[in-house]
Amino acid sequence: MKLTVIYDSKTDNTKKCADWIVEGMSRVEGVEAKAFKISDIDEAFVKESRGVVIGCPTYAALMTADLRTWLLTSAGKMGMAGKLGGAFATEQFSHGGAELVIQSILTNELVFGMLCYSGGGSCGRPIIHLGPVGVNGNVEPHNRLENYEEYFRVFGQRFAAKALELFGSRP
Amino acid sequence: MKLTVIYDSKTDNTKKCADWIVEGMSRVEGVEAKAFKISDIDEAFVKESRGVVIGCPTYAALMTADLRTWLLTSAGKMGMAGKLGGAFATEQFSHGGAELVIQSILTNELVFGMLCYSGGGSCGRPIIHLGPVGVNGNVEPHNRLENYEEYFRVFGQRFAAKALELFGSRP
Amino acid sequence: MKLTVIYDSKTDNTKKCADWIVEGMSRVEGVEAKAFKISDIDEAFVKESRGVVIGCPTYAALMTADLRTWLLTSAGKMGMAGKLGGAFATEQFSHGGAELVIQSILTNELVFGMLCYSGGGSCGRPIIHLGPVGVNGNVEPHNRLENYEEYFRVFGQRFAAKALELFGSRP
Amino acid sequence: MKLTVIYDSKTDNTKKCADWIVEGMSRVEGVEAKAFKISDIDEAFVKESRGVVIGCPTYAALMTADLRTWLLTSAGKMGMAGKLGGAFATEQFSHGGAELVIQSILTNELVFGMLCYSGGGSCGRPIIHLGPVGVNGNVEPHNRLENYEEYFRVFGQRFAAKALELFGSRP
Repeated sequence: MKLTVIYDSKTDNTKKCADWIVEGMSRVEGVEAKAFKISDIDEAFVKESRGVVIGCPTYAALMTADLRTWLLTSAGKMGMAGKLGGAFATEQFSHGGAELVIQSILTNELVFGMLCYSGGGSCGRPIIHLGPVGVNGNVEPHNRLENYEEYFRVFGQRFAAKALELFGSRP
Repeated sequence: MKLTVIYDSKTDNTKKCADWIVEGMSRVEGVEAKAFKISDIDEAFVKESRGVVIGCPTYAALMTADLRTWLLTSAGKMGMAGKLGGAFATEQFSHGGAELVIQSILTNELVFGMLCYSGGGSCGRPIIHLGPVGVNGNVEPHNRLENYEEYFRVFGQRFAAKALELFGSRP
Repeated sequence: MKLTVIYDSKTDNTKKCADWIVEGMSRVEGVEAKAFKISDIDEAFVKESRGVVIGCPTYAALMTADLRTWLLTSAGKMGMAGKLGGAFATEQFSHGGAELVIQSILTNELVFGMLCYSGGGSCGRPIIHLGPVGVNGNVEPHNRLENYEEYFRVFGQRFAAKALELFGSRP
Repeated sequence: MKLTVIYDSKTDNTKKCADWIVEGMSRVEGVEAKAFKISDIDEAFVKESRGVVIGCPTYAALMTADLRTWLLTSAGKMGMAGKLGGAFATEQFSHGGAELVIQSILTNELVFGMLCYSGGGSCGRPIIHLGPVGVNGNVEPHNRLENYEEYFRVFGQRFAAKALELFGSRP
């Protein structure tokens, strides 16, 4: 089963997180996972994917303009309806607004007709409410993206396991 | 397959909408759907349900305090994880905040580990972004709940069809 | 005192609403109000304005990509900090997500350091929770933008009165 | 000028943050600031306050049921309309949803007719988008509330300075 992570990234911080999600997804047998930047997407791979996780950095407490544009103009061609959907974000401070970004992405995924899933508190520790958030080390000395690394892998693994459970035996 | 609609209602406006969703769900063969007020829930039925839709009226642009309390104290016992999740709301004006309520309910459902689904724009007309909204006739002369009646039925039907597609052949 | 309404509009529905807000603002003595499309803004006028109301149509339950881009790339030059801030939106159905759009715009205004204000339930009838919403007649036979016309005027008038109360006697 | 911080707190983590905001407010000359738990509020002090900041811990990515109940049943008696309004939250992980809580509280404050203000990016470093967030040390070894202590003080100070600027010379 194919799974896709799509991201916008300005400084490769968010790219790192996308790659961690792919690593977590790849822990699940039978899953082939790839991450694509919104400017360089293998559309055929996305179309064949049964789940798509979308993420971006937080700008002014909201998603980036490039991701907003991509969601409105390009995502529609990729057969999103019926796929499992997830979201993630990065930010520079814990109060940056990453969960607002994740909530907005999930909102857009629901409009596409996707099935949104995070695992939430149902998979034991760590609890991941709406999706993983990485706080980078640009501003806060006690924070760096690697503090949050395992959340992304765990999220990816849970997402892949759920996709397999839902769609595994189907073409 | 069992499906549940759970609602808070002060004046039976929101109860009406819950009943319309049940009617729409019941259009799908093989589905047994019931609506319960949060104060009077058949827990066994909810546990056996493969999908749960939750709704309430809009108070000060947010969900009711009773639904918030129920979600935190009671919903956890009903095995929500893995179920299909949906949401709806009523309001007194189109600017009342019903979509904020729906978004909050879906956020809570994600934390329960549910699979959130609305159909969005993927099922043709009518498009239902996050869930159906009913504007009652308490304040605005051009509005009454019945204007929105068919949205609730269509939403219920799509939700039931998706639940059947996902879980139909399983116990 | 100068007040500005800034909007994105694809079919002039949202332009109409912006103009209604300007009409309401102009009911308040001492106020000079103007509406500008994001592609054609008199920056000097905005800078001199003590309040700015921003609005757009609802696309996929979120703000337009053009408004998102404008907020990130252009609004910052216009001295938004300390101004009174408001928001409005249009949509095609009551469940379209207009309040999500308004909430996002207000979020961005807070990041600019603006003072957000809607009047809410504090000015008597009509109650306007976060900002006025217009449901156009493109899809629903019982709806048309004019049903909501007076909300926009009332909102504009209240916003102008509050701006005058806060800043009136100052340069 | 009187300023109030109102909070819900289960383990005194959020109480600590409320006290830090009061400390920051008290840095501004002419300000008398007090913090009250929602179960023990000096209503007369709140009524006389020109600004109110409201906060709580994050439960399932949303505000606590007790704060939701208080906002609907008790806050209305305290003359919130026209006051400066702010919000804050605590959480156990950076992905907990604290910004969703802050956004909900601000939404409710707008419905009360308050003027919402955070300072955002307009006061230099640190940037505080919607309000300060404290991540406690219950779960994450790299986090503890004290990492975020100064944000609360700075937020309180900026909030008080703005309240004084707006209302200072008035009764």
